[in-house]
Amino acid sequence: MSNSVKDFNAYRSKMNDKILADNNKIIKRIFNLDTNAYTQGALDVKTKELLGLVASAVLRCDDCVKYHLETSYGLGLNKEEVVEALSIATLVGGTIVIPHLRRAYEYWDALESQSESS
Amino acid sequence: MSNSVKDFNAYRSKMNDKILADNNKIIKRIFNLDTNAYTQGALDVKTKELLGLVASAVLRCDDCVKYHLETSYGLGLNKEEVVEALSIATLVGGTIVIPHLRRAYEYWDALESQSESS
Amino acid sequence: MSNSVKDFNAYRSKMNDKILADNNKIIKRIFNLDTNAYTQGALDVKTKELLGLVASAVLRCDDCVKYHLETSYGLGLNKEEVVEALSIATLVGGTIVIPHLRRAYEYWDALESQSESS
Amino acid sequence: MSNSVKDFNAYRSKMNDKILADNNKIIKRIFNLDTNAYTQGALDVKTKELLGLVASAVLRCDDCVKYHLETSYGLGLNKEEVVEALSIATLVGGTIVIPHLRRAYEYWDALESQSESS
Amino acid sequence: MSNSVKDFNAYRSKMNDKILADNNKIIKRIFNLDTNAYTQGALDVKTKELLGLVASAVLRCDDCVKYHLETSYGLGLNKEEVVEALSIATLVGGTIVIPHLRRAYEYWDALESQSESS
Amino acid sequence: MSNSVKDFNAYRSKMNDKILADNNKIIKRIFNLDTNAYTQGALDVKTKELLGLVASAVLRCDDCVKYHLETSYGLGLNKEEVVEALSIATLVGGTIVIPHLRRAYEYWDALESQSESS
Repeated sequence: MSNSVKDFNAYRSKMNDKILADNNKIIKRIFNLDTNAYTQGALDVKTKELLGLVASAVLRCDDCVKYHLETSYGLGLNKEEVVEALSIATLVGGTIVIPHLRRAYEYWDALESQSESS
Repeated sequence: MSNSVKDFNAYRSKMNDKILADNNKIIKRIFNLDTNAYTQGALDVKTKELLGLVASAVLRCDDCVKYHLETSYGLGLNKEEVVEALSIATLVGGTIVIPHLRRAYEYWDALESQSESS
Repeated sequence: MSNSVKDFNAYRSKMNDKILADNNKIIKRIFNLDTNAYTQGALDVKTKELLGLVASAVLRCDDCVKYHLETSYGLGLNKEEVVEALSIATLVGGTIVIPHLRRAYEYWDALESQSESS
Repeated sequence: MSNSVKDFNAYRSKMNDKILADNNKIIKRIFNLDTNAYTQGALDVKTKELLGLVASAVLRCDDCVKYHLETSYGLGLNKEEVVEALSIATLVGGTIVIPHLRRAYEYWDALESQSESS
Repeated sequence: MSNSVKDFNAYRSKMNDKILADNNKIIKRIFNLDTNAYTQGALDVKTKELLGLVASAVLRCDDCVKYHLETSYGLGLNKEEVVEALSIATLVGGTIVIPHLRRAYEYWDALESQSESS
Repeated sequence: MSNSVKDFNAYRSKMNDKILADNNKIIKRIFNLDTNAYTQGALDVKTKELLGLVASAVLRCDDCVKYHLETSYGLGLNKEEVVEALSIATLVGGTIVIPHLRRAYEYWDALESQSESS
């Protein structure tokens, strides 16, 4: 199942490279902001990742959810914390968030199984 | 084509089981409400399913549309009624609903062909 | 409080007249479809109004909700039926629908008080 | 300016009371969940309020933003923390969030000025 | 009626100043990008304003629509061009865009009447 | 890679034919409007395609984006113009548009490679 992690990242990297190679100034700066916004500030990086995760979940962007799940996992956030954040997203965003919740659970499992096998 | 019905339901059940096994109280209660909301009340169950279908369609949630199509089909709503509900969704939600309409038609066909072959 | 009903309808009519006077073919036809979509068909008019109401509520369009509340009221749908439809909208659309639910209740009260005073 | 805080809360309370008096089971339980979701759990209450704030901001629900700003203020979150959360919302949700950011700033000012005058 | 133009701009400027005075790096850069994105490039400024207008209309952001209407008006785009852009927004975004169309017409009238009286 | 263009169009045509064969009056008219809205008027067809593209991108409808990319490509719009339109969509709609931007780049590549091989 961990292939889903590798496949997602490979596609994401390949296409981001193509986009950035194009030198559209606005898009490049938005990508740049996207990196800066989640660094340590008044709020710590774990909190910021969860904010990005919840924003992505209520806006129902599966790829964005995957990205923030992976970073959250890497930062050592545990499943209970991540699920609690997703529970707020499901309440605020409604039952239409549930299909994205299913895919989030599947991706978290893939992250865990990839980690175990490495 | 009816495999799409089985596949959808198998994945949905498997992941719902994982989510509910996790015992997050908020998520469990939302799942519980999702069952209760469509039972007979001041409005009959057919009307409620169509309300769930239209809400899902304008919010462009394919899995939610599939779920309500399947329940509508099981309750004996006919295609003309379902399409009329979806026509309101397409008008209110705009042409961005059309790709979801295509997938809704495909799933309805799968429901009908599964039914014939059983 | 019933002035809110009159004010809403007066503004709506005045601006719709301006828009239609402009003769943009696409907009005129969309307005025309908006009238036709809610007429009797495979589904009855009451069901269709509730579908329009729920679509409007989950998409969080206060003016659209008001319009469908008023038509629902005129068709003789009672408050329990309307609230049951709105409860599905709140579940599917999440707690962000709640502020719109408050305004829907306020407008329904205005419709009832206008009716009593006439 | 602090009247905007009182007015918002008075309207919110009045309409919530009307809604809850209606005894629609689904709506009552959603209101109930809305209270429970932000209590201490695997995540602390401050983090949860910020998650609710960001979810509300990207979904562009002014009343929801006001509610979470007020609770955040009451919990002792400072402006820099709140603005950092809102900056993530603006990045993830895009420039359409900016008008809501203006109104969030205005409400935060009202919360501060109310607090000073009391 | 032209006061609505002045009032909108005064509030917008006042709050933008407060936001920018706060020195949140992410928000400042997004504001900066918002200025740069609509300058002459491969596409001319008129086309870009219409793109901003349609994006704002389908996302149903009244303040964003007002802003792009005002800039479009200043660039000499005529009403027929602007309405044609808005007709695409109404078709793609559905009838929930109509209330925003009414307010867009009202603001365009305010822009025209302000211009005549100056 | 150009098969993705053929596959998309084949599925789209097949399902559109099924939908139109159903004779739902509202849906047929919306399909009809969808054709008329992008014809030459006060705005030229290239501008209108870009408006449709940006509306589709901010509403995050991949199939709609593909459709407008293909028509834009057919009308001779170059990549720099299309990307500039998409950069406005990404700014207005936020970083949640980025996954759709990746898929838009992929589809544009498929359009170019199909064209070269024909």
